[in-house]
This record gives sequence, structure tokens and C-alpha cells, in this order.
Amino acid sequence: MNFEVTILGSSSASPTKNRFQTAHAVNIHERFFLIDCGEGAQIQMMRNNISFAHINHIFITHLHGDHIFGLYGLLSTLNLDNRRHEIHIYGFSMLEYILNDFLKYFGNEFRYEIVFHAVNVNQHKLIYEDKSITVETIPLKHRVPCCGYLFREKAPKLNIRKEMIERYRLSLAEIAGIKEGCDLMCEDGSVIPNMELAYMPYTPRSYAFCSDTGYSKKIVNIIKDVDLLYHEATFARELLKMAKQIGHSTTVQAAEIAKQANVKKLIIGHFSSRYKDLNPLLDEARSVFPETYLAKENEVFEIELEKFKE
Amino acid sequence: MNFEVTILGSSSASPTKNRFQTAHAVNIHERFFLIDCGEGAQIQMMRNNISFAHINHIFITHLHGDHIFGLYGLLSTLNLDNRRHEIHIYGFSMLEYILNDFLKYFGNEFRYEIVFHAVNVNQHKLIYEDKSITVETIPLKHRVPCCGYLFREKAPKLNIRKEMIERYRLSLAEIAGIKEGCDLMCEDGSVIPNMELAYMPYTPRSYAFCSDTGYSKKIVNIIKDVDLLYHEATFARELLKMAKQIGHSTTVQAAEIAKQANVKKLIIGHFSSRYKDLNPLLDEARSVFPETYLAKENEVFEIELEKFKE
Repeated sequence: MNFEVTILGSSSASPTKNRFQTAHAVNIHERFFLIDCGEGAQIQMMRNNISFAHINHIFITHLHGDHIFGLYGLLSTLNLDNRRHEIHIYGFSMLEYILNDFLKYFGNEFRYEIVFHAVNVNQHKLIYEDKSITVETIPLKHRVPCCGYLFREKAPKLNIRKEMIERYRLSLAEIAGIKEGCDLMCEDGSVIPNMELAYMPYTPRSYAFCSDTGYSKKIVNIIKDVDLLYHEATFARELLKMAKQIGHSTTVQAAEIAKQANVKKLIIGHFSSRYKDLNPLLDEARSVFPETYLAKENEVFEIELEKFKE
Repeated sequence: MNFEVTILGSSSASPTKNRFQTAHAVNIHERFFLIDCGEGAQIQMMRNNISFAHINHIFITHLHGDHIFGLYGLLSTLNLDNRRHEIHIYGFSMLEYILNDFLKYFGNEFRYEIVFHAVNVNQHKLIYEDKSITVETIPLKHRVPCCGYLFREKAPKLNIRKEMIERYRLSLAEIAGIKEGCDLMCEDGSVIPNMELAYMPYTPRSYAFCSDTGYSKKIVNIIKDVDLLYHEATFARELLKMAKQIGHSTTVQAAEIAKQANVKKLIIGHFSSRYKDLNPLLDEARSVFPETYLAKENEVFEIELEKFKE
């Protein structure tokens, strides 16, 4: 029942010798999701033993090259790998034209389908759902249309409190109902509330990806209380003015958002190539939000299961 | 007066954990040329301390993604680096459309010009010349229009044999003429041939890049006697049939071309991702042409200056 985020690239627009451009792989219950796909994402996935066959959904935040130029190679490699099942790509509507132009030149031999889902980046909205998770958009504040993505694990099936089976002589049908959240109607007309009979085995987990974006208080309510927040921090605190001008955030701004949203852990990334040593950036963010960590290539952030607190 | 080739990527269509896709950087007298530009070429150039500002010419062999998907990122980074001087790209005519589509979405803010030169891949022809080198096309045999490139250092200016200045009391004008290759007309009507008066300080060097290609005897005459030949060897000898079917070569075929062309040194590369250990491929090629070396990421092949043999 894992929920983990692998950093494939941590750089901003220009890569560096050691930092690839933005891409994160999210593994929830062994289903893999890719967020953004900077150049080199496919080689980074290989290095992290992420099977291409297990990626069925790619979420693109915006159409700057450092977030999508890895798509061309990845989509081509999927075909070479004999993929037959479709891949779903989510992003701003113009991405469909970019993909179609790409396919015009390079897709002749593709034997799988690319299903494109246009996303309204200005709305906070549920855009994906399966049996285990939901994905919502997070409108961001950048120079071009841009949204983040919020991954939420669905509430798990309830566990029955074993002693209750005996106490109320529960039938199989009653147990099934209780596991779905029903209360128990007793023969004497009394009602035993569900939470006395069952409990949630663990707290559903959540991951919010917010890049690229300037400082935006509007996102705080959407990402409130998430377990893990990735928020870009392209610049150090001293470059606040530049950050504002070009729709990016500083370390301290990322940390302030994390604090206001009461998240459990913050990852900062999308570092400008001017920074060789990232520790000063980390120190700045930690001065505001101590539970901050650096996005580093091939680092895995696991969100551990926690018992549900009643 | 260097002449060296840096391997940026050695993989075929699919990259591997450690092998990027095709790209070679050629440094001749501190002028840099890029041949092909697979995904990740820009990060590989950084790792090899190759300044983007010094690259003015990119030669593309053919329009398969593994040879060009690094262009998008590289061209974008050039702009972020505040490039103002133009870059020249050589390749099959359709590349111009691909570049124009790319610029349509990503080139709005570009402040430098991309000058495209369509290349007739079916002709062996001089396509580039500056004061130090020439570049010729090498028609190759692939599934799509494809040509290699042959880099030749121009003959250096002649050195005068010092003892001749005294012997024939040469004037400055005569010395200048002899350095340009003229014979000496003496007052008594006799003629002293140039080679008695001057000598070439070193032998001009040459590098031929042949990928992707099936086995093609036609290239032998074009690449005859080059100092360094890169010839693709996508497959081991046992996959000869498959190599033929899809327009690639085996180790042994690459080595046979090197032998027939009497080249000094052979680099094999464009290895299929099926090969983890490349040494068996090297052994196969060396059984035919002992001076064979493996293309490996970040390896530099230097062609040393050699005294001209009269």
C-alpha cells in the first residue's frame, strides 16, 4: 500500500550537470503517475526502475519546454517497447496541438493510442478518479496557463472491530453494510453508530504538486493539510523581485505556503541553475517551515501509512 | 591545434540507464560542431564542459527521434543563455518543418536566428567550409533519408625550409609565394619545385561519422584513409538478418568497412539497449579490425598531430 514520490528532475528552465528538468513519478499502490516530463525523464525513470508499462497517466502542468520536452522521447520509447494499451495525457488544451504535430512527424508507426484530456487550469476540479485515488487541479499563477495537481488516496474500506461481531451477533450482510459505513439497526429499535462498530484502518494520504507558480495564497485552501507538498522555489529569498516578475517563488514563499496550509512535509525544487549548493536554499525555507526537504534527483519521498485518529 | 571527438551519447533508439542517445561533439581548433542531438545532449555537453556559445553548427544525420529530440531543449537553453548570434543547422529538408513547428510553440521569445541548411542526403557533396575545415556529406543506407558527415582539416600553410632562404636569397615576396605552394623561378630560368623549398608541418586530419546505416560498400571510397571513423554497430554479428532488415549494421560489418577504407581507428556505437556488456561487441569488431574502440559516454577521442610524410 505504498504512496511515494520519486524526483526525476529538480532543475528549472536550464538543466545543470547534475540536475534534470522537472518530472516526478508518483507511485500509489503500485500504480504509477507521471507529473511533467522534462528532457531526460525517460532515462531517469529507467534509473529508478520505474517500468514504462506501468505508466498510464501523465499530468502536465504547463507548456514550457522544461516541463514537456521529455515527452517526445518517452512516447517514442513506449512504442519501441511494443506498447499496445493507451496512455492518457492531461494538460492545457494547446498541448493537443503540440502532440498532434509531434505525431505527424514521428507517430507513423505508433501502435498505441494517446488519449488527450484538456484541463481547465483556472478551475479547481476533479479530473481523474480510479478505485484508489482522485486527482484534482490546483490553479497556479505563472506566466502561461498552468495548474498543479493534487493526488488524494480514497478513504479505505472500514475494518470491523472484531469484538462487535460477537457482541451484536452480526450477520455477514450486516458486516458488509458496516464496512461500507452503515450504522447497525438493532431489533429493539436502537441504532449503533458505525464508528462504534468499525474504524478506518489508516488515514488517506495526499500529495500536492505546485509548480511553476508565483506566491499564491489562493492555493492554501485547496492543499490544506496534505501530507506532502511539492512547491517550487526557483530562487533564494533575495531574488524576491525577480521571482515575482517571472511568475516564480522564493524559498521563503514556498515555506510560507506550506505553513499556512498546515502541510506535514514540504519539498522545494525547480532550482535556478545559478545555485550550485542548494543547502542555503534549504536553510532559508526551514527558517519558516522546518519540515522542508530538497528535491534531489532519484530521491524517493514515501508517505507512510498512519493509523486513523478518531 | 586540437581535433577531438567527444561521445555524448552511444545508445540506439532506446536509451539505457547509462547510455544517452546519439550526439557527438567535434572540437577542431577550439571550434565546436555538434553531430546529431539525441535527448539529453545539452546535459551531456555541460558535463563535458563544452560551452554552448561555441557551438555554431549542428549537423543532423536523419530525422529519427533518437538523433534529434535533444534539439528542442538545447535550442531553448541557447535562448536562456542570451544567445544573439545565429546557429546553423544542417539536415534533411523535412527538418525545417519540424523546427518551424517547434518555433511556433516555443520560439516566441527567441532572440537569435536558426539558419537551416537543407542537405541532399543522396549526394556526396561539400556542404560547409571555413578557414580550417570542410564538411562533406556521406550518403548512408537507412530506412529514412540519412547521411553521415566527413570532417576534414584543410591543408595547413606550408613551412619554409630555413636553409633555403639563405641558399636562394629569398625575398619576402618569394617566401610568401612559396608558403602558398608556388615554385621558385630563378634568374637563370631554372625552376625549384615547391616541395624542395617548403614542407607541410602536419598531415591534415579527418573524422567520418556514419550512423545510422546498413552495410554499404559505397561509402568506402568517400571515407578512404580517414584518421577516425565512427560507424554504427547496433547489433552483434548474430543479428545480421535483423540489422539488414531495419537498416543497421553489425559489429563485424562496421569493422569490415573500416578495414576496406583503411581508416586508422574505428569507433563503434549506437548500441541496441539489449546489450548490457559491450565488450563482446568490441571483441567481434576487433577480430576484423583491431583498432576498434567502443563509443562510451564522455569519452574523448583525440586525433593527434602527425608530421607530414613526404
